[in-house]
Amino acid sequence: MDNLHFLYYVLDLTGAFVFAISGAVAAKQRGLDLFGICAIAFTVACGGGIIRDLCIGAIPPAGLMNWQYLVAAIAAAGMTIGLYPLVQRLNHPVLFFDALGLSLFAVTGAQKSLAFGHNAEVAVLLGITTAVGGGVLRDVLLNRVPVILEREIYASAALIGSLIIVLGNYLKWLSDDWVSIIALIICFVLRLLALRYHWNLPVYSDDEADSKLRNDHD
Amino acid sequence: MDNLHFLYYVLDLTGAFVFAISGAVAAKQRGLDLFGICAIAFTVACGGGIIRDLCIGAIPPAGLMNWQYLVAAIAAAGMTIGLYPLVQRLNHPVLFFDALGLSLFAVTGAQKSLAFGHNAEVAVLLGITTAVGGGVLRDVLLNRVPVILEREIYASAALIGSLIIVLGNYLKWLSDDWVSIIALIICFVLRLLALRYHWNLPVYSDDEADSKLRNDHD
Amino acid sequence: MDNLHFLYYVLDLTGAFVFAISGAVAAKQRGLDLFGICAIAFTVACGGGIIRDLCIGAIPPAGLMNWQYLVAAIAAAGMTIGLYPLVQRLNHPVLFFDALGLSLFAVTGAQKSLAFGHNAEVAVLLGITTAVGGGVLRDVLLNRVPVILEREIYASAALIGSLIIVLGNYLKWLSDDWVSIIALIICFVLRLLALRYHWNLPVYSDDEADSKLRNDHD
Repeated sequence: MDNLHFLYYVLDLTGAFVFAISGAVAAKQRGLDLFGICAIAFTVACGGGIIRDLCIGAIPPAGLMNWQYLVAAIAAAGMTIGLYPLVQRLNHPVLFFDALGLSLFAVTGAQKSLAFGHNAEVAVLLGITTAVGGGVLRDVLLNRVPVILEREIYASAALIGSLIIVLGNYLKWLSDDWVSIIALIICFVLRLLALRYHWNLPVYSDDEADSKLRNDHD
Repeated sequence: MDNLHFLYYVLDLTGAFVFAISGAVAAKQRGLDLFGICAIAFTVACGGGIIRDLCIGAIPPAGLMNWQYLVAAIAAAGMTIGLYPLVQRLNHPVLFFDALGLSLFAVTGAQKSLAFGHNAEVAVLLGITTAVGGGVLRDVLLNRVPVILEREIYASAALIGSLIIVLGNYLKWLSDDWVSIIALIICFVLRLLALRYHWNLPVYSDDEADSKLRNDHD
Repeated sequence: MDNLHFLYYVLDLTGAFVFAISGAVAAKQRGLDLFGICAIAFTVACGGGIIRDLCIGAIPPAGLMNWQYLVAAIAAAGMTIGLYPLVQRLNHPVLFFDALGLSLFAVTGAQKSLAFGHNAEVAVLLGITTAVGGGVLRDVLLNRVPVILEREIYASAALIGSLIIVLGNYLKWLSDDWVSIIALIICFVLRLLALRYHWNLPVYSDDEADSKLRNDHD
């Protein structure tokens, strides 16, 4: 673990691959063609990071510049297409992959923002953005309300992960490596527990007038 | 009024807060959870400004860097959730808040683009973008065609407001302060009149073939 | 053809105009108002290029800075509204205009990315983005799954066009002018052939479980 840079690199690529799997599965289920599946896989893998890089001034965005991300996305698309029965037999593969990618991206997103010299708020907001941006873009492109805005603890887990990174950077009680690992594990476990026990953030019940309004908009 | 900077600061935060209210109301009506309501509130408050800042090279975007915007968005979300009956009793609160935020953001958006040394066209286009960008993102995330593309004079009012800023900056007949105030009032009054008298931009009636196409796409 | 800069300028504006036509037609068919038609026309014309410029650091984006694009978009919107029967009588005007704009934008997008000193992957990805980004934004704003992710060879043609530019730049067997023309023609012909003979990329048939999932998401 003395080679922090390499660790981040592996974490980042792993996150990209697992996110791309979730994108490819959603795109395939929606009936998109080969290009569509690859494009959605790449978007989920790199979309959040590209928005982060535009906001912190990392030009061109890492997701566009490094062929590794593109290869990871295409490999994920290929695996989803070729080995779909396998991907499907795993119990809730999309959700598990999502939780892992979520934690990895929140941590690396917050760290990169701090490394570019931006403040704590930018780091937390862009940690969340890195983690959930790709999934939001996926749902926008597949023409549905982003699931992260409706369901269980998800972006909130990314928020916790990003906050731990920022706090660790501020307090300096532990090495950056340990802070990363702690943030990663807490975010991941929180997400898995939320899935397992159906933890939800509160939804505020609508009265009749609201339901009518909502139907009008649908 | 000798402290222009402070005036802009207050205007900007007020705009962010009222936009966030409109976002939180729409998100609550759509049945999103607590995080979803906060996220949409923040997106409406800061989305247009973030796009503007990316386009003029103001990195990181003000909406991400200044905690005041985030607090304004969360306060608006809290007020919408906690005091919803109050928010609802106001006659057309979303529309009124929208009109105020629209005018404030068109003016500050055009001014900031000019302050960064960009030309008149950039200032006008990004004035409109600052004003309507957040609302467009809200509607895209809530999975509906942006209302500003379908209904009464709205973005057109922002266009007028931005144009007045650019003209004032070019002609220099009045101080910047007066130009801001005039642009703000004209944009706001225009929007309110459009709401009151149902002024609309023309829609071009479709023939049968068109309607068929449209249905196919829906 | 000794004035390459002027050629690119004309190509770029032509591409913007024909893309704007396709945007205005789609917006009019959807029943948007005058501002909505102009906004969608401008978005299709400049949206892909604006994303490209943000990613390569060309601030402010050319589409916002040069009045010619705005004029082209408004002219296209006006022609679509005023001469709609004419636009409609052309057999498949939207598809033809789309194919021309697609090829022009893929070529100029890849070239501009290389001119800003970015690598081959950035150039290919942003060539595709320039070509299809506006159309994707159009479909997202009109609340439908982007057609390019579902149907015939489209973005794949832009991919081929961008790849030829990058290869030509790397191999240097021909002058840049010739490479542009070859890339342009191959991309355009490929797209027209795909339209004529209904060439499609494979779609992977869903089993029953998938269809159920898809319905749940719709």
